[in-house]
Amino acid sequence: MLSYDIKKADSDSLYHYIYKCIKKDILSGAIPADEKLPSKRPFAAHLGVSVITVENAYAQLLAEGFIYTKPRMGFFVSAIDTGKSNLKQSREAQKNYSEGQSSNFYKNSIGKPASPKKYLADFVNNQVDPESFPFSTWAKNMRKIICENQRELMEPSPYGGLLALRKSIAKLLRGFRNMDVDPSQIIVGAGTDYLYGLLVQLLGFDKKYGVEDPGYSKISKIYRKMNVVCNFIPMDASGVIVEQLEETCTDVIHISPSHHFPSGIVTPVSRRYELLSWAAKSSNHYIVEDDYDSEFRMTGSPIPAMKNIDVMDKVIYINTFSKTLTSSARFSYMVLPKPLAKKFHEEFSFYACTISTLEQLALAKFIDEGSFEKHINRMRNLYRGRRDALLQAIRKSKLSHLVEISEENAGLHFIMKIKTRLSDEDFCKRANEKGIRIGALSDYYTEATPSEHQFIINYSALSLKNLEKALNALYDVAVG
Amino acid sequence: MLSYDIKKADSDSLYHYIYKCIKKDILSGAIPADEKLPSKRPFAAHLGVSVITVENAYAQLLAEGFIYTKPRMGFFVSAIDTGKSNLKQSREAQKNYSEGQSSNFYKNSIGKPASPKKYLADFVNNQVDPESFPFSTWAKNMRKIICENQRELMEPSPYGGLLALRKSIAKLLRGFRNMDVDPSQIIVGAGTDYLYGLLVQLLGFDKKYGVEDPGYSKISKIYRKMNVVCNFIPMDASGVIVEQLEETCTDVIHISPSHHFPSGIVTPVSRRYELLSWAAKSSNHYIVEDDYDSEFRMTGSPIPAMKNIDVMDKVIYINTFSKTLTSSARFSYMVLPKPLAKKFHEEFSFYACTISTLEQLALAKFIDEGSFEKHINRMRNLYRGRRDALLQAIRKSKLSHLVEISEENAGLHFIMKIKTRLSDEDFCKRANEKGIRIGALSDYYTEATPSEHQFIINYSALSLKNLEKALNALYDVAVG
Repeated sequence: MLSYDIKKADSDSLYHYIYKCIKKDILSGAIPADEKLPSKRPFAAHLGVSVITVENAYAQLLAEGFIYTKPRMGFFVSAIDTGKSNLKQSREAQKNYSEGQSSNFYKNSIGKPASPKKYLADFVNNQVDPESFPFSTWAKNMRKIICENQRELMEPSPYGGLLALRKSIAKLLRGFRNMDVDPSQIIVGAGTDYLYGLLVQLLGFDKKYGVEDPGYSKISKIYRKMNVVCNFIPMDASGVIVEQLEETCTDVIHISPSHHFPSGIVTPVSRRYELLSWAAKSSNHYIVEDDYDSEFRMTGSPIPAMKNIDVMDKVIYINTFSKTLTSSARFSYMVLPKPLAKKFHEEFSFYACTISTLEQLALAKFIDEGSFEKHINRMRNLYRGRRDALLQAIRKSKLSHLVEISEENAGLHFIMKIKTRLSDEDFCKRANEKGIRIGALSDYYTEATPSEHQFIINYSALSLKNLEKALNALYDVAVG
Repeated sequence: MLSYDIKKADSDSLYHYIYKCIKKDILSGAIPADEKLPSKRPFAAHLGVSVITVENAYAQLLAEGFIYTKPRMGFFVSAIDTGKSNLKQSREAQKNYSEGQSSNFYKNSIGKPASPKKYLADFVNNQVDPESFPFSTWAKNMRKIICENQRELMEPSPYGGLLALRKSIAKLLRGFRNMDVDPSQIIVGAGTDYLYGLLVQLLGFDKKYGVEDPGYSKISKIYRKMNVVCNFIPMDASGVIVEQLEETCTDVIHISPSHHFPSGIVTPVSRRYELLSWAAKSSNHYIVEDDYDSEFRMTGSPIPAMKNIDVMDKVIYINTFSKTLTSSARFSYMVLPKPLAKKFHEEFSFYACTISTLEQLALAKFIDEGSFEKHINRMRNLYRGRRDALLQAIRKSKLSHLVEISEENAGLHFIMKIKTRLSDEDFCKRANEKGIRIGALSDYYTEATPSEHQFIINYSALSLKNLEKALNALYDVAVG
């Protein structure tokens, strides 16, 4: 078994020290490609550290591509040609990318200047970790479909999506969310942005829409661009305040009860029933349940979707594969209550589906063959490891006396309340000057009175490399 | 050189006789796989027939997959395993498909029951010929991108589309349409349906939209679903009547001046200037130029786009790759006037692009490497051959005395006026009973007074096999 002298860890966090030792051995060739790393439990016992420490070290190595997993077999060393390694190349590519000197594909004269300058730590980036995408499986699927399904590939998809894909999604919802939906209730589309627009067409331009305040600003932007009334509904610690729905005459409320962005609030069952009871009061009332990252609950069992207790058929469930697979492919879907599904099929069937047949077939295959479930489990472990390492690093840092962590058990971000005399704006600005990208909860309020000094910590794409340095810098900003 | 006894052609049309002879030789193995077929001109001379006859025969063989082309090298025999041929399999698949007994992919509990029952002739189907899609090139591109561009593939596309793709499209527009546009004016999206909706958001819900009457009904449906006023503007022989735009206070007129569907009208330059002059009268006025099939002008040089003479920046040009590549992938784009492009980039950049990065890269590569141009040229020849064969067959049939053909030089359909005492509805119904799917121009009118007895002949996916029989049947319907 690998042996490292833990005493040498010094100021380094333990997991980071182990991570560095293994990385060094991989790069030097001391641990050859495709060798299995020791199992976590015995390795932890061997080193005299906790299992979580080993897990975090492995998670980081995995995230950086030094090791890979085989389902149910453990972790293996990636083949890394240190002469001209893929890793190096990809890092180089990223570097050029951020400097805007890379291939033409990146010189975006319009569109978001997709990627970041190099930060010591970036707590704003909430992209999926690109290195962990199961590329080889996905590519193999695509190749197989291209070779074997030529005729099917030339057929345009039905407007609601290929039945194969809708069936796969229904199966997934049964397995992950214990939801019992008929494939005919599912409408797939190229991104949730597109589906929100479709939903306005389906529910009506005369309805009043409501969004959470604070909330993900894009959602209200879309409703406003669709030319409908969009109310900002204030939240308490349980979610949107139902009385406010009544006061504002809101018809359709768009919420994320399983894990609110950005506050991280998980709406408890009592409030959920209260919302459903509000919805039952009028035929115009609907709840849009935006379940964008429920797959990543880190502790305990997943919180049931509102759709599960929706006996009155008032909940429109929306989800996306952007968080679980990659946002570079556009896979989203909504589950319509049966009467709305009927209306959709009667009145909207002239619309062409917005996802290509090829990509729909590829996703269906990926789900049907179990690859999606494996991937989600792997990602959940990876993100949990990253979260745990981050929480541990915070606890061990000077910053720990100044902060209070909340809502850390669901989704891919949590809230860190920081004691500081600075305004949120100043805090974020000064942090940025020190190379730390961080956003405040108060930025996400529109009309409600914001809570101060609460910062959003996204960790799905966070590099743990300079974490200590970053946390020290945050401390300096807070006290300075 | 291949020799067939042309005298044996009997009642068969010449091209069909030659097609049958070659097909028989391919199936029997008399002409082996990958053998080059004789060049058209010497082969025509050798058989004592016209070059067009040979072209038509080759076009049909190509359409049915018996032969394939190599650019600038000619036609070659496909490898066909007659024991268990792909061709047979794919036909079987199609048969099962139309009978609703095929694989799960096809049992669409929702969505259009994508494909047709078997018709003697189907003049309604306007799909792209699926067998002529350049599958191997496309698949090779995809494979290459998946292997070589992993990191790029994980990056979400900028909202307007990847710059690489927008550049390729700009180049294409320069080459095909002599249009000089900046890539920043191009917005790509998953289908024109989606882009029409986006356009309403950009131009305003308070504007009055106008569509051609007769016209493609989907367009008015989309405007109405987007909750905007949609006027039906009557047409004369040159296109929409400009006075009617003024009378109805239309702000935005959506037209297809290069080849109107369904009438086939090509709007002459004088009317185009008249429309542009109307557009110049108000800052609210815009022209949406839907250029959906201009690539397929069959005779003479392509008609310049209105965008080309749009000095006042009043034309929004929209096009799609559905007609040129396949509608199973969702590739469309619009070219915005510069001030509108600026507004779009300022106000709509929060929208995610609706096409996956992979498919955008694949299309950019396909265009950049010249594959698209080759494909278009090949398809134009194929469709021209099919059109010529159809026109020739009509001229040689009994039907010829009853019909008048118009608008046959652009696009993938023409108009056939048929002398009959039947109403359009009865004619189509009776034709259907005889296995002929055909639609009348009058079906496409909403408010204007329809022209009777004009039928739309789509030929892009038409099989020429039973054409004579079908034309005779149409004759019987017309006189009976």
